[in-house]
Amino acid sequence: MTRERKNCGNVKLMTPNYMTQSPDYHFADQLISRVRELGHPLCLGLDPHLGLIPELFRRGDMAATSEETPAAVEAFLLTVLGRAEGLVSVVKPQIAFFEQMGFRGLEVLTRVCDRARSMGFLVLLDAKRGDIGSTADAYARAFLEPGSPMEAHALTINPYLGLDSMEPFAARAEAHGRGLFVLVKTSNPGSGDVQDLSLEGGTVYQSVAAALAPLAARLKGKETGWSSLGVVVGATYPGEGQAVREKLPDAVFLVPGYGAQGGSATEAVAGFVPGPRGLEGGIVNSSRGILFPEHGDGQEAATWDRAIDAALDRAIDELGEAVSSGA
Amino acid sequence: MTRERKNCGNVKLMTPNYMTQSPDYHFADQLISRVRELGHPLCLGLDPHLGLIPELFRRGDMAATSEETPAAVEAFLLTVLGRAEGLVSVVKPQIAFFEQMGFRGLEVLTRVCDRARSMGFLVLLDAKRGDIGSTADAYARAFLEPGSPMEAHALTINPYLGLDSMEPFAARAEAHGRGLFVLVKTSNPGSGDVQDLSLEGGTVYQSVAAALAPLAARLKGKETGWSSLGVVVGATYPGEGQAVREKLPDAVFLVPGYGAQGGSATEAVAGFVPGPRGLEGGIVNSSRGILFPEHGDGQEAATWDRAIDAALDRAIDELGEAVSSGA
Repeated sequence: MTRERKNCGNVKLMTPNYMTQSPDYHFADQLISRVRELGHPLCLGLDPHLGLIPELFRRGDMAATSEETPAAVEAFLLTVLGRAEGLVSVVKPQIAFFEQMGFRGLEVLTRVCDRARSMGFLVLLDAKRGDIGSTADAYARAFLEPGSPMEAHALTINPYLGLDSMEPFAARAEAHGRGLFVLVKTSNPGSGDVQDLSLEGGTVYQSVAAALAPLAARLKGKETGWSSLGVVVGATYPGEGQAVREKLPDAVFLVPGYGAQGGSATEAVAGFVPGPRGLEGGIVNSSRGILFPEHGDGQEAATWDRAIDAALDRAIDELGEAVSSGA
Repeated sequence: MTRERKNCGNVKLMTPNYMTQSPDYHFADQLISRVRELGHPLCLGLDPHLGLIPELFRRGDMAATSEETPAAVEAFLLTVLGRAEGLVSVVKPQIAFFEQMGFRGLEVLTRVCDRARSMGFLVLLDAKRGDIGSTADAYARAFLEPGSPMEAHALTINPYLGLDSMEPFAARAEAHGRGLFVLVKTSNPGSGDVQDLSLEGGTVYQSVAAALAPLAARLKGKETGWSSLGVVVGATYPGEGQAVREKLPDAVFLVPGYGAQGGSATEAVAGFVPGPRGLEGGIVNSSRGILFPEHGDGQEAATWDRAIDAALDRAIDELGEAVSSGA
């Protein structure tokens, strides 16, 4: 299906940004409501691979340390946001691609997040942070505190350091209605090296999922019943997704690995459950498949527009179909 | 013991920075040689807790988002580096405390790392990064690539995503002689939640340690025999440190948890082994105990100098004693 694009910033579908400062703000309630409204769980990943940025936006040699590169990345991503405005509920910038450009890259990240919020997107920052005590608190302040330069609505975190390392993130998420997505079963081939280690009565990732249940209860929303304590479960492991769902019935799933990494739309929603408008309970990320579509590398703006629109429409259609046919 | 301070940058003990660009550069060889030369394994942690920065350096309200805060942090850390110059082989900035100030904080980190390198310190960046494939590669480029703005000699990484997630870091470490410290058994009370999960014939952290053996072999130095594949093992778990040493005989240990977190100097070196000048095979971090010493919070520069010098001397003496008495 071809969708109309509204690039002039007049789309009123989304809740305005000031809501994130309200005491009643709740990430999962917002996210699930928007996903229901739009009819699909697509999360648009913003992974600016420097080598893949289309000709149209490139400046100079596009080396990570070149002076012109951050501006090129910014122009590219802001244009991408314009194509997706009003069509997608949540965007997921991957901070590594900004960090490789140093602090100037993080300045671009700050502006891209600002613009995304002002366009009505929820911003889920993929940073996979994890550390102990006061260090975790500094990370939580960096990403989950209202008014912080790299503020996001939600953040991915790593559980290897244990529950006490996640507490500073949970406390700030609770105070400001922010979301967390804890890595449980990641999409990569080697994810089993640690996550699938076999324990008595299960595996490491199942044990991590079970240990998160009290946090999920603390961050549960009143409106939709979904928790702002989410988990990352790769589309490439649908059976594992169902096992995690059993342990965490109300955790929102962030599902990477759909598209470029090989997971199908149906596999991606394997951990979703029936809701009022189809299967729900998660978002499915696509980054490369949308940002760098086939035939999107030319110098022609109109050709690039058509290529990215088609890639976006295709993902929305596939995922919309997967959630509605499973209901 | 009271040591003479040489704050005018004329200390020639350390290898100059251009060495890091040489094809023969090897992090562990450099580190262990310097530790032998200095006679102690102290690593000075640079964790600028905004609330603890002494009166002498504070500007304005020191909120993470205040405009004056990054400059105050920079002045504080550069002065700290001056006090430690020539006395300590390696400094460990904790990136979270810079990230909480946004991109301006990371600009400060860049300048602090530059200054530290030019003073002859090795820079071990504590970022605990971990992600899959091309994302891990972007992180590796950010922190391990010569000439990158946030370039470090070594980086801490998180193993939860498995061996394939560590490969891009290992490849860049190998190409440029950089070091990696993989989280194995962290110092916090909750570290057991995942790391101590019990498997057939061991625990998760032991299994992670065993899985790292091939990487350790790849990154082994020719001069000292120590590997640039290091591991993080908390001073608070000396028995676990010895268990990790059995699986990884040539991995350099980064030992957090000494001092403020409760581990003694003797416990901190529990995983060290006899070398030509005492126990060796690791570095022991102290951050808060040195940066924010007792009686160091006044307005008097001379009083602060005395307090930080005393704290630094005490840690050097304690750790020097622990490695020499165990030899």
